[in-house]
Amino acid sequence: MEVPATLNEIFGYIERNKLKYIETLREAVAIRSISCLEECRDETIKMVNWTADRVRKLGMQVSLKDIGMQVLANGKEIKFPPILLGTLGNDPKKQTVCIYGHLDVQPALKEDGWSTDPFELVERDGKLYGRGSADDKGPVLACIHAIEAFQALHVDLPVNVKFFFEAMEECGSLGLKDLVISEQDLFFKDVDYICICDGSWLGTTTPCIFYGLRGCCFFRLTVECASQDLHSGVNGGMLHEAMADVIYLLNSLTDKDGKILVTDFYKNIPPVKPEERSIYSNIDFDVEEYGKSVDAAKLFYKDKVDLLLNCWRYPTLSIHGIEGAHGEYGMKCVIPGEVTGKFSIRIVENQTPDEVEKLIINYLTKKWEERGCSTKMKVSMTTAAFPWSENPHHPHYSAAQRATRYAYQKDGDLIRAGGTIPIITTLKQITGKNIINLGLSAGDDNTHAQNEKIDIHNYIDGTKLMGAYLYEVAKIEK
Amino acid sequence: MEVPATLNEIFGYIERNKLKYIETLREAVAIRSISCLEECRDETIKMVNWTADRVRKLGMQVSLKDIGMQVLANGKEIKFPPILLGTLGNDPKKQTVCIYGHLDVQPALKEDGWSTDPFELVERDGKLYGRGSADDKGPVLACIHAIEAFQALHVDLPVNVKFFFEAMEECGSLGLKDLVISEQDLFFKDVDYICICDGSWLGTTTPCIFYGLRGCCFFRLTVECASQDLHSGVNGGMLHEAMADVIYLLNSLTDKDGKILVTDFYKNIPPVKPEERSIYSNIDFDVEEYGKSVDAAKLFYKDKVDLLLNCWRYPTLSIHGIEGAHGEYGMKCVIPGEVTGKFSIRIVENQTPDEVEKLIINYLTKKWEERGCSTKMKVSMTTAAFPWSENPHHPHYSAAQRATRYAYQKDGDLIRAGGTIPIITTLKQITGKNIINLGLSAGDDNTHAQNEKIDIHNYIDGTKLMGAYLYEVAKIEK
Repeated sequence: MEVPATLNEIFGYIERNKLKYIETLREAVAIRSISCLEECRDETIKMVNWTADRVRKLGMQVSLKDIGMQVLANGKEIKFPPILLGTLGNDPKKQTVCIYGHLDVQPALKEDGWSTDPFELVERDGKLYGRGSADDKGPVLACIHAIEAFQALHVDLPVNVKFFFEAMEECGSLGLKDLVISEQDLFFKDVDYICICDGSWLGTTTPCIFYGLRGCCFFRLTVECASQDLHSGVNGGMLHEAMADVIYLLNSLTDKDGKILVTDFYKNIPPVKPEERSIYSNIDFDVEEYGKSVDAAKLFYKDKVDLLLNCWRYPTLSIHGIEGAHGEYGMKCVIPGEVTGKFSIRIVENQTPDEVEKLIINYLTKKWEERGCSTKMKVSMTTAAFPWSENPHHPHYSAAQRATRYAYQKDGDLIRAGGTIPIITTLKQITGKNIINLGLSAGDDNTHAQNEKIDIHNYIDGTKLMGAYLYEVAKIEK
Repeated sequence: MEVPATLNEIFGYIERNKLKYIETLREAVAIRSISCLEECRDETIKMVNWTADRVRKLGMQVSLKDIGMQVLANGKEIKFPPILLGTLGNDPKKQTVCIYGHLDVQPALKEDGWSTDPFELVERDGKLYGRGSADDKGPVLACIHAIEAFQALHVDLPVNVKFFFEAMEECGSLGLKDLVISEQDLFFKDVDYICICDGSWLGTTTPCIFYGLRGCCFFRLTVECASQDLHSGVNGGMLHEAMADVIYLLNSLTDKDGKILVTDFYKNIPPVKPEERSIYSNIDFDVEEYGKSVDAAKLFYKDKVDLLLNCWRYPTLSIHGIEGAHGEYGMKCVIPGEVTGKFSIRIVENQTPDEVEKLIINYLTKKWEERGCSTKMKVSMTTAAFPWSENPHHPHYSAAQRATRYAYQKDGDLIRAGGTIPIITTLKQITGKNIINLGLSAGDDNTHAQNEKIDIHNYIDGTKLMGAYLYEVAKIEK
């Protein structure tokens, strides 16, 4: 496939500036913008300001929207990081593309098993290791650099661009929904297309274009047996222990095959149609290779379609950890006084967070009563994100597919994914526009896990993809 | 009860030196001798050397015994802290008392819920807050200061004294047993009586003299589903998760009332005799007050005797936490790749660690097979300490009871306790001598927990107790 001359020039410029782009990513990764940690809030805000400086250099009008205070679980209030709204161009003859990305990252500690400091970008074997390199600082920078390439070559940007960057995504995009609604007739008024730039491919060689995501409901299940931790020798045998009850309750949530045991949980989920299965069968995904890549003890299914459906079309529940217990390395003979089991459920089409919240609370309350637990228990849903799916038979998706071919010399797979982008359903509701999610990072990039990385060639090809995407969206009939 | 004139003088000296003793404890607490943390090993060794300096000032001959290398779970080897053996006097006409204490502490982080820095001694309302203040740095210093008081007043110490201090107690006294055995005909040869100086009273007003302790078996139950952590959205539904299996296994260990469900677990435990119940009924312990002091959601029994028997005469199992999962505060949508459930069992008379290890491994293996788990599982016992009980109808105990009356103006309660001192059974085996455990700290001192403290008056009265104990042991017929 021949790349149009203009794009070819832009791709060349991007290749030539590779080292500069890596240095910019190094600066971004060094900022510890872990949104869920109170002690990292200043750094998270710093990351927004750092990005705003770069966006302003593109000549964009930048507005940093204050969305007020976050109330933490302990009752303390801290400032939310601002939302970055950037606007470049307002030519009514051009399409207006709004690009969403996030500037915050998941927690990461060297002790978790990272080979290197998570907040220092380390290049090894053509890969750039560092928290946020793939999720989502690298992709956000790719968008910025793509526009910069047009400008450096004095090529007229064929679309108006809006940047919509937040820094609370890893906490469920807290505070963002109200801002989006309040900007419906302002910032989002003239938007024609929305591009989410936050996703990882299924594998490592075929790019992916996403038209569906699961939602996510995060729960905290707190059990208290005493007002503070106790000595397991001195007090063991005196009182009912919180750990025993929280573990009983967590154990009641799923069966050995991951099926969620909560009453009526699957009731509203539409059955998989035969044509859906046939779409899945064409997706480039090697079950055995995937299993090896994560060194899985056992996958739920050997069949590709069954496995992908289980991850994309059905809800799953993961238990993440227990706060308040002795989770660090070593031996501490303690009876934890208050512990909080943390789990989340990825929800799918026809499920709503409200419904799931009710089902979970009712179920755990019932289980707790059945056992006759005497500890104190409370369960609450702290984050709620709806599932999303889009019509992929739309010119917007065709434009993205052409851009993919130019950037990677092959077609992308049109797929769903198991992850969640909380704000996407609100964006759909208030704009009514077609939304696409372009993945720039590879399936082995370890987003959310130890040794997150982005391959240098993906970081660079992703920058090309974003340039090509803007170029191709401009061709959609207005 | 009238205090003998010599002791009265010694008590007066101790009172007058209160501030100096508090300053010494401040220095000791500031040393982060957390034996189970690799990064604190240097500080743990420093604590031994710091103590050795103080012991040498008493004119004691000090030997610091190298006991080699500790192999950590990750295969790394680090030096054990040395064992401190101190000898003062070798008069064959005098009784020889060997005093045991430990210099290491449990982990403590301000974030665990401490009101102040755990490693800075803080005085408030007559209490001295700090990790190790009660368990066991305060009591160890009380022993040193008691001898110093005799010397300062030029009162001949009526006994030969041996100090036997270790710094791996909170890790199950790793490495200590072999040293004790090898010193059977050397350091321990002439010992007549052994005094363990490491215990907390049941309540806050009646001193306790302990004649029995439970043993402790610590287990690590590791389950692995993937070679590293994964994203719960991207991968949730693809593979069997380690957290689900470890929680299922932990949940299978006990019922809702804390009863251990492991096959044959109670088989060898002798039944409680009626006369045993009647001894318990005289112990100064207020169930309601205890429940309030820990703000317990529910105690296992309302009856004092039932409750104490459950804690002292029966085994209990506590789950301490899960390593490798997200135990810190906040939200991390992760599928932990490998997790380790940590639990320990306090074992009682007629139970041995070997037997308990076999029962647990067989039971968990059977439960794992029953479920058809496909994750990788391994379970191991990392610490094993035998239960201990002594004959309290011995002149040694009468001497300690007299000392208690002098120091506190009341009788102590002769009791068992639920905790464990790992080396005690080996000391019994190799010396054959009568062993006593004197508690110096109050029942509300929060050993192993947040805001550990020792009351100033207990720290000082405990120093008096140790002086009186040495004075009274000297009177036992040789």
